[in-house]
Amino acid sequence: MEKINLLQKFDLINEQWSPKIVGELNGQQVKLAKLKGEFVWHHHEEEDEAFFVVKGSFRMEFRDKTVELNEGDMIVVPRGVEHKPVADEEVWVMLFEPAGTLNTGNVTNEKTKHDLETI
Amino acid sequence: MEKINLLQKFDLINEQWSPKIVGELNGQQVKLAKLKGEFVWHHHEEEDEAFFVVKGSFRMEFRDKTVELNEGDMIVVPRGVEHKPVADEEVWVMLFEPAGTLNTGNVTNEKTKHDLETI
Repeated sequence: MEKINLLQKFDLINEQWSPKIVGELNGQQVKLAKLKGEFVWHHHEEEDEAFFVVKGSFRMEFRDKTVELNEGDMIVVPRGVEHKPVADEEVWVMLFEPAGTLNTGNVTNEKTKHDLETI
Repeated sequence: MEKINLLQKFDLINEQWSPKIVGELNGQQVKLAKLKGEFVWHHHEEEDEAFFVVKGSFRMEFRDKTVELNEGDMIVVPRGVEHKPVADEEVWVMLFEPAGTLNTGNVTNEKTKHDLETI
């Protein structure tokens, strides 16, 4: 039961699109990630996913709309819903999702990250 | 899939120690609460609970130590562990815990809140 300071944890992240685990509870994980650029369209078959903007801004593209997210905004992406995060400038996000959720969901490509590090 | 702006949601909260639901995913709920003063010692039998400080600071007392939490800090309190939040000044926190988690855990008293409102 130690405190987790988000900014200190973000300082440890040198790579974009590479989520790190900072906490775990009830089978869910809290992850931090730095994002810049365009991700891949994907969905998660059985996992809902929350994104919370700690610093910066990005947009979450859905097939039928785009949601702009700024610092202090959160969005929940329900399972099965295709989405693509896009960040013009680097954004720092906190994620909540079930343990083992794959970042690229139903897609596997060069952005897919397995065996995430806990920091 | 709408964005949830935490500060706008906090503006809707007029009562201290009265968590409001702002999101739900994977059977978990995201709640916001304003705390000031001393809560009751309690634990949650089957729920781990995360506290994230959005504004202000507070301390989480455990039976064997106290953890000071400031803006940007998070702590995970595992199930079964007795804890008591204490805030000298009002603090705004975001909570992650299983849907239906009772704020006072194993204790029922005048601070117990049932049927939380979604805002």
